[in-house]
Amino acid sequence: MTASSPNQNSYPYQNEPTWSKSEKVIAHTAFDVALGRELREVIQRAKQMANEIQEPSDLWELENYLTQRRKEIDRKYDYRYSQLRHVFGRLLYEGRLNEQDLHGLDEDKLKSIRSFAKFLAEDAA
Amino acid sequence: MTASSPNQNSYPYQNEPTWSKSEKVIAHTAFDVALGRELREVIQRAKQMANEIQEPSDLWELENYLTQRRKEIDRKYDYRYSQLRHVFGRLLYEGRLNEQDLHGLDEDKLKSIRSFAKFLAEDAA
Repeated sequence: MTASSPNQNSYPYQNEPTWSKSEKVIAHTAFDVALGRELREVIQRAKQMANEIQEPSDLWELENYLTQRRKEIDRKYDYRYSQLRHVFGRLLYEGRLNEQDLHGLDEDKLKSIRSFAKFLAEDAA
Repeated sequence: MTASSPNQNSYPYQNEPTWSKSEKVIAHTAFDVALGRELREVIQRAKQMANEIQEPSDLWELENYLTQRRKEIDRKYDYRYSQLRHVFGRLLYEGRLNEQDLHGLDEDKLKSIRSFAKFLAEDAA
């Protein structure tokens, strides 16, 4: 493809920011921290639900809870650099990460992350 | 359809035994007893698995266990009179019912139930 190709502007990743080596380390750490926190929550809740099972219906409620949480976590934790600003924006909105966890990312990325968190907050309001 | 219809012998339920009122009571009770026993086993096992969860993988193992058991129980406990002899045969083979639980069914049904239990035992050997 030459510089004058008519398709040049439609290349889908042209506006994606690049992630420096140090930003990748920060992103990976923050991602793992949030995922770890969320999984610990699910473990605690599952143990509590199991402990309280009395009836078969409680059993299938636990199964359904686990299935829903697994699917939600699979969807939410998408470690593609093209998706990370949305992922972190959601985690910020949900209070699973704070700005300190993201400290060291460049200001444009932080702005985009905050902006998505704000959008989710307003959307939920 | 007349008595001389060529399809007469292919009517699928013509050889199904009928279930008397008292047999239906016995069947319903035995069915509920076995299902109750099996569900209590799953509840105990789920509580134990939940109690032992350490890692996220243990969580999804519990989910998978519950899903598999739910599907298996759905398949196994089929309260259609056309299916009951196979259902009871399997429960007898699995030791979830004993002959005493089925006492009062007519001898032809008991023979068919024992025969299916024996088939399963030989098939598994």
